[in-house]
Amino acid sequence: MGFSKVVIALGGNALQEANTPPTAEAQLGVVRRTCERLADINFKGYEMAIVHGNGPQIGRIVLSQETAAQIEEGLPAMPFDVCGSMSQGYIGYQIQQCLRDAIRNRNRNVPVVTILTQVVVDKNDESFREPTKPIGPFFTEKEAKRVARERGYVMKEDAGRGWRRYVASPTPLRIVELDSIKRLWDSTIVITAGGGGIPVTENMDGSLTGAAAVIDKDLAAELLAEEMETDCLLILTGVDRIFLNYGKPDQKSLERVTVAEAIEYVSEGHFAPGSMLPKVMAAIKFVRRFPGKKAVITSLDKAADALEGHAGTVMTMA
Amino acid sequence: MGFSKVVIALGGNALQEANTPPTAEAQLGVVRRTCERLADINFKGYEMAIVHGNGPQIGRIVLSQETAAQIEEGLPAMPFDVCGSMSQGYIGYQIQQCLRDAIRNRNRNVPVVTILTQVVVDKNDESFREPTKPIGPFFTEKEAKRVARERGYVMKEDAGRGWRRYVASPTPLRIVELDSIKRLWDSTIVITAGGGGIPVTENMDGSLTGAAAVIDKDLAAELLAEEMETDCLLILTGVDRIFLNYGKPDQKSLERVTVAEAIEYVSEGHFAPGSMLPKVMAAIKFVRRFPGKKAVITSLDKAADALEGHAGTVMTMA
Repeated sequence: MGFSKVVIALGGNALQEANTPPTAEAQLGVVRRTCERLADINFKGYEMAIVHGNGPQIGRIVLSQETAAQIEEGLPAMPFDVCGSMSQGYIGYQIQQCLRDAIRNRNRNVPVVTILTQVVVDKNDESFREPTKPIGPFFTEKEAKRVARERGYVMKEDAGRGWRRYVASPTPLRIVELDSIKRLWDSTIVITAGGGGIPVTENMDGSLTGAAAVIDKDLAAELLAEEMETDCLLILTGVDRIFLNYGKPDQKSLERVTVAEAIEYVSEGHFAPGSMLPKVMAAIKFVRRFPGKKAVITSLDKAADALEGHAGTVMTMA
Repeated sequence: MGFSKVVIALGGNALQEANTPPTAEAQLGVVRRTCERLADINFKGYEMAIVHGNGPQIGRIVLSQETAAQIEEGLPAMPFDVCGSMSQGYIGYQIQQCLRDAIRNRNRNVPVVTILTQVVVDKNDESFREPTKPIGPFFTEKEAKRVARERGYVMKEDAGRGWRRYVASPTPLRIVELDSIKRLWDSTIVITAGGGGIPVTENMDGSLTGAAAVIDKDLAAELLAEEMETDCLLILTGVDRIFLNYGKPDQKSLERVTVAEAIEYVSEGHFAPGSMLPKVMAAIKFVRRFPGKKAVITSLDKAADALEGHAGTVMTMA
């Protein structure tokens, strides 16, 4: 196992905790603890690349800009793809700084670096026709209709709480900066495809245009793991294992699961969309692509043990 | 000259033009034109790394957040170093996307990638005692004193226009991510040390802490050029050449200048602080470090010609 390479997908709880204030300072504290666990994994001999989510962060960047723009004409809000690039800067910087420190504290010297990452999606992806990801502030119906008219946003009513902008969640197809990631792969911990990557569509001439969309970070991590033929895809979340009948009296955690079993559990509706389902789907996709490899779903605290088979849910082909 | 490597420091006018609105969309248009010129340089056989400024962008990020925070408690403004990381994301993304396109249009395929970059400064740098860089919004005296008390900001009166926050402009000492930049150097156009780099200070245990400061991007570009022993430091600005007696009837442009001459002109006060002076100082520092190499100061449009000695101001040792 000495030098296995792992792509690690960090869930939202690795960056923010319930009841901590929504400040960058508080997030830095959470990131610092997260990086201690990541450094443990590195210390056990695993090389790694890191993909993180950005949901709350990009939501607040958008909200902050829309709020400022409403009262100050000289502060126009930035397009959604640019907000994504800013969230990669914000989160990547904190992880890069804290993980370097945590690794140095273990008397190692491994470079840690954030690569700003664009991920190509299909402009005909069906999710663009029916956006499903709510982002940013709430509006009244009247404001929402004005915003929709003025800026071409898709606005929908969100569960009785008001109107919000919805964006697409298209499938990631290609990592634009893959070549640079490859060159750093053997020597460096690369933080990449943050927030699932900045979504871009390809024009007829091959040029790229940013899209107002959110790519699922677990699917982006899976794409990276496929491209790099990594040994393991490690998806971190708030629970130690995946569950059948989660939250019900007969809930049951899974220690090992085959791809065939996982597909059956998915079809039986055991996993919540937008929560455990995309993680299980990403794991299935990776193991189907490389039937000899494994995917692991667990919590940050159990991650190091799970990689050695002592914790978490391990998915294999057979 | 075939494969000379150049570190290019991009001035503010490479990202924004007078009379264009302060939107990311308008900036993208300016960046696209800038990247055509950068691709011309690449097409002539020069390899390059790019350092860009971030003054107006970080100013607006700070202002937008402070504005939103004033009316919405759940949107606290982020610390200055995080705003810097966000500006690296924003600007790096746009350059990375447009430069890739411009190079592909010339039937080349050179990877272009942004590395989030921290730059170490001395926490005892004298500039921390007397901050000189105004940033962000204007306040009334009363507000300013409250902000100073609540957040520990240094607030000063700015030329009769109101009170503003001032931050230090310390000397860049070390590029934290240099190792990764080196690994990509031969194959890739690296966008790095954006805005002069995110300033960090080193603690007793070697860990890093972000600082509220702005590093001069020309000095950061010079540091990179020194570390990489690049062939040329190319500093781009709004004018084709540097001038003696700039703006006066007897102004005179300089085609070639030695380090000794430049030092004399500096001592005679020919170059404006915060404008041409830091560029000339960066050029002097580079050529003194490598007496066989050259620094070039010119405009974006003349850059390709200037590298071949047909335009711009070329500084050499003798």
